[in-house]
Amino acid sequence: MSAPLLEQLIDALRVLPGVGQKTAQRMAYHLLEREREGGTRLADMLAQAMERIGHCAQCRDFSETDLCPTCANDSRERSQLCVVESPADRLAIENATGFRGVYFVLQGRLSPLDGIGPRELGLEQLDQRLAQGEIGEMIIATSATVEGEATAHYLAQLARARQVRPSRLAQGLPLGGELEFVDRGTLSHAFGSRNEVQE
Amino acid sequence: MSAPLLEQLIDALRVLPGVGQKTAQRMAYHLLEREREGGTRLADMLAQAMERIGHCAQCRDFSETDLCPTCANDSRERSQLCVVESPADRLAIENATGFRGVYFVLQGRLSPLDGIGPRELGLEQLDQRLAQGEIGEMIIATSATVEGEATAHYLAQLARARQVRPSRLAQGLPLGGELEFVDRGTLSHAFGSRNEVQE
Ligand SMILES: [Zn+2]
Ligand SMILES: [Zn+2]
Repeated sequence: MSAPLLEQLIDALRVLPGVGQKTAQRMAYHLLEREREGGTRLADMLAQAMERIGHCAQCRDFSETDLCPTCANDSRERSQLCVVESPADRLAIENATGFRGVYFVLQGRLSPLDGIGPRELGLEQLDQRLAQGEIGEMIIATSATVEGEATAHYLAQLARARQVRPSRLAQGLPLGGELEFVDRGTLSHAFGSRNEVQE
Repeated sequence: MSAPLLEQLIDALRVLPGVGQKTAQRMAYHLLEREREGGTRLADMLAQAMERIGHCAQCRDFSETDLCPTCANDSRERSQLCVVESPADRLAIENATGFRGVYFVLQGRLSPLDGIGPRELGLEQLDQRLAQGEIGEMIIATSATVEGEATAHYLAQLARARQVRPSRLAQGLPLGGELEFVDRGTLSHAFGSRNEVQE
């Protein structure tokens, strides 16, 4: 019998993606042997983040505040709205491109079999925003997967119904690829040469 | 600008071994999106473990209590002492073999260039234990690396000086291999066919 607290720590570490029993064990020993301060800091950050990070009321990205820094920033261009699947995709575009507009984060993509429909993606909220008339172009940056394309198709219809011009990142994204893992250069190029979506 | 707290969490996650910026980011998003409860539990376990897990006064293994459960267990055979490099190695032997004796955890191996000598490995404490006369056999389970072999040689001398019979895990461990990562069967076989160390 090892110390129960150590076993509980190893068990708790397995909540991390891609971390099995063996890796969790190595992580626990590493922290105990060499990184007590770092482990304590991680505990503190985790506790605060799980408690305090919610979603931006406007774009649904993760945020500690009611409005995220991007939405609260008056110098962002409000006529361009970029729709992404996830916060990680938003961050990838922000880091790779010179985009100065605003975002909308779906937190998923249409997947009827998994029970993910327009409601789960906040599309009513998005539609209300389109209806306000401030947005001229909706850049659809969903992934180049089957579900991402279906979602893009749906979003383009939504945009047209509100007289907003929909565009889609240029082909060049690897087929079937998750946008989050595309390299910077490819992503930047695809973003720059986006095309208007045809009927 | 992302939310600062999220950035701090991502930064804090990089204290984990093998976790770079990209993986830390994925972990943070995963917890926020799907595992808030698990993340909170992990924070709690980490905080408790970093604070409360120390070392067993007798064997130097990790322990929440002054004596670890193994050292405190009266049914363990005190005439056999198994010396290992790390808590992970101790756990691997405990899980793979039927060993019912007790352990001593070096928390390292002799490495003069890194300033790790007999003092850092608690060898005075080990020598005192050998001097008490309770131990008949010292099973040296250091790794099959150059430093592990040098440590084994030193330990064997220590044992003989106290009329304790030193033994070494049987050859069969992959050369240069870290004991912690050896498969169960190989480890169990090597443990079972350990040999007395010759002068
Ligand atoms: Zn926002
Ligand atoms: Zn102990």
